[in-house]
Amino acid sequence: MTVAAGTPAGQASLRRHNMALVLRRIAEAGPISRAGVASQVGLTKATVSSLVEDLLEAGLLAEQAPRAQQRAGRPGTDLVLNSRGPAAVGVEVNVDYMAACVVDLAGTVRVNRLERADGRAISAEETLLRAGRLAGACATAARRRGLRPAALTLAVPGIVAEGRVVNAPNLRWSDQPVAEALSAGLGRRPLPISVDNEANLAALAELWHGHGRELSGFLYVSGEIGIGAGLIVDGELFRGATGFAGELGHMCADAAGPRCACGARGCLECWAGQEALLAAAGLDTARGTRLGAEESPITELARRAEAADRAALAALERAGRALGTVLASAVNLLDPGAIVLGGSYADLAPWIAPPAQEELAGRVTAGRWRPEALRTSELGAGAAVHGAASAGVRALLSDPLAAM
Amino acid sequence: MTVAAGTPAGQASLRRHNMALVLRRIAEAGPISRAGVASQVGLTKATVSSLVEDLLEAGLLAEQAPRAQQRAGRPGTDLVLNSRGPAAVGVEVNVDYMAACVVDLAGTVRVNRLERADGRAISAEETLLRAGRLAGACATAARRRGLRPAALTLAVPGIVAEGRVVNAPNLRWSDQPVAEALSAGLGRRPLPISVDNEANLAALAELWHGHGRELSGFLYVSGEIGIGAGLIVDGELFRGATGFAGELGHMCADAAGPRCACGARGCLECWAGQEALLAAAGLDTARGTRLGAEESPITELARRAEAADRAALAALERAGRALGTVLASAVNLLDPGAIVLGGSYADLAPWIAPPAQEELAGRVTAGRWRPEALRTSELGAGAAVHGAASAGVRALLSDPLAAM
Ligand SMILES: [Zn+2]
Ligand SMILES: [Zn+2]
Repeated sequence: MTVAAGTPAGQASLRRHNMALVLRRIAEAGPISRAGVASQVGLTKATVSSLVEDLLEAGLLAEQAPRAQQRAGRPGTDLVLNSRGPAAVGVEVNVDYMAACVVDLAGTVRVNRLERADGRAISAEETLLRAGRLAGACATAARRRGLRPAALTLAVPGIVAEGRVVNAPNLRWSDQPVAEALSAGLGRRPLPISVDNEANLAALAELWHGHGRELSGFLYVSGEIGIGAGLIVDGELFRGATGFAGELGHMCADAAGPRCACGARGCLECWAGQEALLAAAGLDTARGTRLGAEESPITELARRAEAADRAALAALERAGRALGTVLASAVNLLDPGAIVLGGSYADLAPWIAPPAQEELAGRVTAGRWRPEALRTSELGAGAAVHGAASAGVRALLSDPLAAM
Repeated sequence: MTVAAGTPAGQASLRRHNMALVLRRIAEAGPISRAGVASQVGLTKATVSSLVEDLLEAGLLAEQAPRAQQRAGRPGTDLVLNSRGPAAVGVEVNVDYMAACVVDLAGTVRVNRLERADGRAISAEETLLRAGRLAGACATAARRRGLRPAALTLAVPGIVAEGRVVNAPNLRWSDQPVAEALSAGLGRRPLPISVDNEANLAALAELWHGHGRELSGFLYVSGEIGIGAGLIVDGELFRGATGFAGELGHMCADAAGPRCACGARGCLECWAGQEALLAAAGLDTARGTRLGAEESPITELARRAEAADRAALAALERAGRALGTVLASAVNLLDPGAIVLGGSYADLAPWIAPPAQEELAGRVTAGRWRPEALRTSELGAGAAVHGAASAGVRALLSDPLAAM
């Protein structure tokens, strides 16, 4: 056992710790008997039974008949996470769409909705009100399925601090509070609201539901209209000293490059941001960001690249090279173990990954780059909203006493 | 109390935890009575007394009469870390010198030696043998002062893994084992040997004995012949997935720049590494790296800059600009809270810091750069060896049972 520095170990905190431990074991190994939990976590059966009583009462666990009555005379029941218990809502506001979903304790997405909307064409308050309504509709649908939505997490493409969006340049939001307008949209049944950066939440979704099942550390790259990153270290999100880590899009790819919207020269977004990429490929950048437009312009870009369109291929090659240059610097500085390309980069990987690999091989020191360390996310565009809801579920599981 | 995930809390581990807690409190607050420790750490007096007995017996603590007999009828004694108890040896092999020191439990440097030696002119084994002899001489001197050297940590300017130096390009070492030759130099009284990167150890020294007294997180930059970095997060060194983090010198400052020794183009070291800097300033780069040379060429460079020598000023300006470009990328990616310029950059800060500040102000996103976040180390060239010995002391203090 490792205990955090500076605090003595007491009984109440041990109970809290052991309760989370039991719950986590059931989440990973269930259906499982009380005796099975006890032997796997190294606690007595009496302790486990007492903890399980409380967890059943709080609706976090459910009992079911064991798969087989293998031991004569010992009927008992197995324990599973309650699929009709507390749940968490995720909602994402992005530049050209909004999305919401509800995830149950077992991590399954139970309700899922998406709405095309240009976040730049309407005010922040109106956007948040609509996002709240979308989240409220998902929560209502979840309640009809017997779930109890207990928390809401908002994902935004921007810098977040103390529950406010400090800066989301692509949404044109600045120092924007979110809880009031979002709550107004939710309606009669309020929820505790958290807010986080979409790249951070997408990285967490990748950790919990994607490549993180095999990797405990990686740098997740979210290629959207802006380019963000979420660094996972030892199964935890690294946020930096003030929560602003992950601005990969404004790492310098070429000091003498063009002026970026942020004011600096030669940021990665100047070549690999969605608008720069589409413009270089000769695509109408307004397409697909119009309210209600059906198709993402990335799909059209991929189609042109498949048809060997020269402008599309050149734009993707240049973007991949800038991305590889910046990622090599990140690898030299951080040694993140692996890199996962997410967001639109997942769809564009066939063209973006090869030049990025070349730069990585040439720039990572001491010949340490292994091409297999560059991976493509399989979560698609729903990663951030999935991560938002899952973050709420994880909070419930890691501190079950708080949910009671 | 926070307990690491995945393990139950038991009594033996609680005793180990509480013992380290008591020891740390005495390190921070001593001289202090048993009752004072008990009330400050939140344990009973009986528990503290029992733990203290073991720590006294192991020679980690010493008793002294309290400063004033303020409470009538209660003589007692105060507790302090034992300044004649276990101690740790640090030894550094660098390109143009080697150094060793001994630090006692209270963190005081008790013995300190430096020897000019060109690590490139002699074999790795011969260098390590000499470093072992220097460390052994320091250990002998410490024993004469009543200390018991109990561990040795070697600092090297290279990538380290599993007790070997994987790659130290500036020393021209590759996949170099260290323990055998170092032990041969130590002589009749062997010590358990650890090895770590010099920038990591210098960053830890900065954490424990420098700006870390006010900052819990910062990026320490070690400007030597190579440029390394050590990232401190929440009072801990961040090592990356495989221990290779911190290769700041090979982050890209200008993708179209000259070829670096590592094979990539436009790495930071191409402008801000000591040899590039001296060459651009028109200084003989061999000066001062010769065996026995008295003065570092950095001193001569600073002297020329003070005399407004144009080549020196231009070289420093260009180095500062490249450094600022790379540091801005690091800040955007990591949000490290602060940056500390160490090694030769501390001496060159009057010329290097202003252009670096300009790049940081122009490149860190959302106007988040605060000039006061760029600091200069006051530890000087001894930071790495001091950190090496202190790391050994910290290991003794954090797991006192292992030292018994
Ligand atoms: Zn920018
Ligand atoms: Zn290089």
